[in-house]
Amino acid sequence: MTEVTLEELAEPYLRGVLATAGLDVEYVRGEGDRLYYRRGDEEVPVLDFVGGYGSTMLGHSNPELVAYAQELLAGHTPIHAQFSRHPYANEVAARLNRIIQRETGSDEPYFAIFANSGAEAIEAAMKHAELERYTRIEGLRAEIGANLEAAKAAAAAGTVTTRGVDAVVADVVAHNEALIAQTPLFLAPVGSFHGKLAGSTQLTYNPVYRAVFSALAAQARFVPVDEPGAVDDIVRSESRELHDVVVEGDRIEVVRRPFPRFCAVVLEPILGEGGIHELPETFVRDVRRVATELDIPVVVDEIQSGMGRTGAFLASSHLGLRGDYYAMAKSLGGGIAKAAVMLVRASRYQTSFEMMHSSTFAKDSFSCLIAGKVLEMLEADDGGVYRAAQSRGTELRSALRGLQEEFPEVLKDVRGRGLMVGLEFFEQGDATSETLRELHGSGFFGYFLSGYLLREHGIRTFPTSSAVYTLRFEPSAYIGAPDIARLTEALRELCRQIRDTDGRRLAPIG
Amino acid sequence: MTEVTLEELAEPYLRGVLATAGLDVEYVRGEGDRLYYRRGDEEVPVLDFVGGYGSTMLGHSNPELVAYAQELLAGHTPIHAQFSRHPYANEVAARLNRIIQRETGSDEPYFAIFANSGAEAIEAAMKHAELERYTRIEGLRAEIGANLEAAKAAAAAGTVTTRGVDAVVADVVAHNEALIAQTPLFLAPVGSFHGKLAGSTQLTYNPVYRAVFSALAAQARFVPVDEPGAVDDIVRSESRELHDVVVEGDRIEVVRRPFPRFCAVVLEPILGEGGIHELPETFVRDVRRVATELDIPVVVDEIQSGMGRTGAFLASSHLGLRGDYYAMAKSLGGGIAKAAVMLVRASRYQTSFEMMHSSTFAKDSFSCLIAGKVLEMLEADDGGVYRAAQSRGTELRSALRGLQEEFPEVLKDVRGRGLMVGLEFFEQGDATSETLRELHGSGFFGYFLSGYLLREHGIRTFPTSSAVYTLRFEPSAYIGAPDIARLTEALRELCRQIRDTDGRRLAPIG
Repeated sequence: MTEVTLEELAEPYLRGVLATAGLDVEYVRGEGDRLYYRRGDEEVPVLDFVGGYGSTMLGHSNPELVAYAQELLAGHTPIHAQFSRHPYANEVAARLNRIIQRETGSDEPYFAIFANSGAEAIEAAMKHAELERYTRIEGLRAEIGANLEAAKAAAAAGTVTTRGVDAVVADVVAHNEALIAQTPLFLAPVGSFHGKLAGSTQLTYNPVYRAVFSALAAQARFVPVDEPGAVDDIVRSESRELHDVVVEGDRIEVVRRPFPRFCAVVLEPILGEGGIHELPETFVRDVRRVATELDIPVVVDEIQSGMGRTGAFLASSHLGLRGDYYAMAKSLGGGIAKAAVMLVRASRYQTSFEMMHSSTFAKDSFSCLIAGKVLEMLEADDGGVYRAAQSRGTELRSALRGLQEEFPEVLKDVRGRGLMVGLEFFEQGDATSETLRELHGSGFFGYFLSGYLLREHGIRTFPTSSAVYTLRFEPSAYIGAPDIARLTEALRELCRQIRDTDGRRLAPIG
Repeated sequence: MTEVTLEELAEPYLRGVLATAGLDVEYVRGEGDRLYYRRGDEEVPVLDFVGGYGSTMLGHSNPELVAYAQELLAGHTPIHAQFSRHPYANEVAARLNRIIQRETGSDEPYFAIFANSGAEAIEAAMKHAELERYTRIEGLRAEIGANLEAAKAAAAAGTVTTRGVDAVVADVVAHNEALIAQTPLFLAPVGSFHGKLAGSTQLTYNPVYRAVFSALAAQARFVPVDEPGAVDDIVRSESRELHDVVVEGDRIEVVRRPFPRFCAVVLEPILGEGGIHELPETFVRDVRRVATELDIPVVVDEIQSGMGRTGAFLASSHLGLRGDYYAMAKSLGGGIAKAAVMLVRASRYQTSFEMMHSSTFAKDSFSCLIAGKVLEMLEADDGGVYRAAQSRGTELRSALRGLQEEFPEVLKDVRGRGLMVGLEFFEQGDATSETLRELHGSGFFGYFLSGYLLREHGIRTFPTSSAVYTLRFEPSAYIGAPDIARLTEALRELCRQIRDTDGRRLAPIG
């Protein structure tokens, strides 16, 4: 064991990795789309396109939100008042419902369960979906149990000729209980990311985040989004049947009944960490059809894509997709509070869930009141923030497409919607430059691009975490045209470095 | 389906349950050990012994912390600066290490992983423990794999007489892989509570919070704390063995090797939701011995008991128990921030965990800086807060013991340490009063006591959530002697109601 001091015990290895790309900067202030670090006595501004991984739709330290947060603190808002009335939580739920009604055209209400992070909201959705499944299984178990009793009674009364009924019953029970004891399955698109808690990490596609912990929790089957029929194939191959008995005339027959093996479909309308890929409409249609056939809920993860980022409050509304559940977090807290919520439509809602699930920190006045204010600001001026996200996003993508035309051998794709934008670079595993090949081999290619942009251009952007050749751009709705121009110029320089030089300026400092 | 409006969508069923006990009050302000609700134009103070379920060790809206939070907000602290330097996180880790070193007498450092809630910190501990187990299994798999290859080579070379080596190898592999694919087990005391996320809810003893979701996640075996040898019995009955082969002279023999089936022992030094029971020393000693024998980590959950509540920073230090991991939250955030952290001792720490685990909201400047300030305040004046918790706690328990002597037929036990105190009432299922029997039958007995204390005495306390005949008292370190006197007087009146009347004043209003 190497010598360990008390100086650096909070993830020193990660900091070391960041240092190799020149990314281990200490930020001391955040405002709008700027983060500041100190160099000697001066503060150096960095133009931030990471935006707290989608959390700062309203910018860092939004003045209206900061003032409101200070007012709440000054007013001694009761942050810890568990098990009392929470009108502010109802207010957030009502606001979200009005928005969902407008965007989906449905007037079925959604109930709200609050959480402290996006991952917690997804966990709550998983638990609620499992409660639905459990309730359904209990119903089936009761029905089949009654049928088994009837069969035994018929055998005892001698009204059936079938022999060995007790053994048949035992077989049926053993088969069913073994099936019921299995961990449920979830369906999620290839490339998904739904957090890293022990439950929710199983819905995250990247095996780095998931594989080690697979024995800990529920399992997901990942569906490729661009193969028509893939959902059907997976569901068919994973389907299982319960056994049941019927008394048919003078015989007892064993029959098969569908088993609710799937707990939920969980999907991001735009795969975020998977590389900013909007789900194809055919895939969404297939999922909706299969989910309806099997009566399994569709959980729409709007944690990163929602809160107006794509030009509508819900990215899923562009896809004509209405969720049975929604999960929201990130920008819901306005860049200040740890606010998260999970919504369940009324027809699926299990009231008993309220007695099974809670969190000391969640549903608190501070985060709910901030979330309410965020929703008010998003909806203000008839959706000015949504319009800004749409128009700024169009400008940004158009600028990036221009670059792609300029550097067709460097840039592979420009993707996204509104201010959730991805720029994919061609892989450099076969580059003539040894440096580029080495950067490729590190597995952190995109982070070296980030390091270059930060060091030489004062711009902060990161690759998506499971697709490191795609840089992400998720600025606030207030990003300016000059900011976009500055980014474009820096990326142009970056593309030149990749195309024309041996990439040495991308390599770490020192 | 009943008509649903948008007015109340945030857990209306729970609010209804609270209403039946008269607990659905709306608090508008919190200060010290007081929460306030409005009646007409006036604010009515409530003396709060719930303390945010242990979150307000420094009181509601602690002036020093509120001022500091406002300063941070005014200074535009960079809340969303993921993947950069986080000196404030290192500062929290260093402070915690200095405290742990003092209280446990060990100088081995602990690494820190940050989270947004206690449940998230427990999930991080579960994941890290599973990474440890996974790494050990991979080592065993590699060793056994090499032995299998050696056996096959020996068979091919004809140096052994054993026949059917391929089949033996296939059997060994099949046996081992089936064992490895099983969900890992955790050990936890009967009565445990470790949060309600999909992973951590499996460590919570109360089946209401766990049973429905058992197929979703890792499994726990719950150990009775008052049965000597119970840990050994459970570990023995759940132990499993891997198969391996050895070439012995001219024969290949199948041998058995211990399989690391247990992921971790997880325990609260004082069972909180389970009814405020300090773990017996014999139990702690048994656990430590078994954990050492099997080389499994002991995760000490100090989420509720820590941060000074028991008169020391760690409740476990009273028990002479040093954790391999610690989980902290609640009062770490000072009643203002959602701060949580998981610590792992250096000799067990897996650096690769830093690339597998993260959270957008965690390790942020705001919650880390508040946590750092909280630690500074706890440690100030040579531990003045700890001394206050100890002396106030002694006064409180002594007053409650006096009551118990006065009402031996009503009060069953007084338990706890420092300001983590439980008062257990005798069950009323066989009461002569029909009202008391009905309140018992509701399953919410303690909540009706809470309702009475709130309505008639302006005092807030709740039962522990999995032991509803035990009222909990977890005020701040600043609780005053007059507050304790007022509580005692109210409880005296409550005991009289139970002993002398038919309990009708405990029943719901209206």
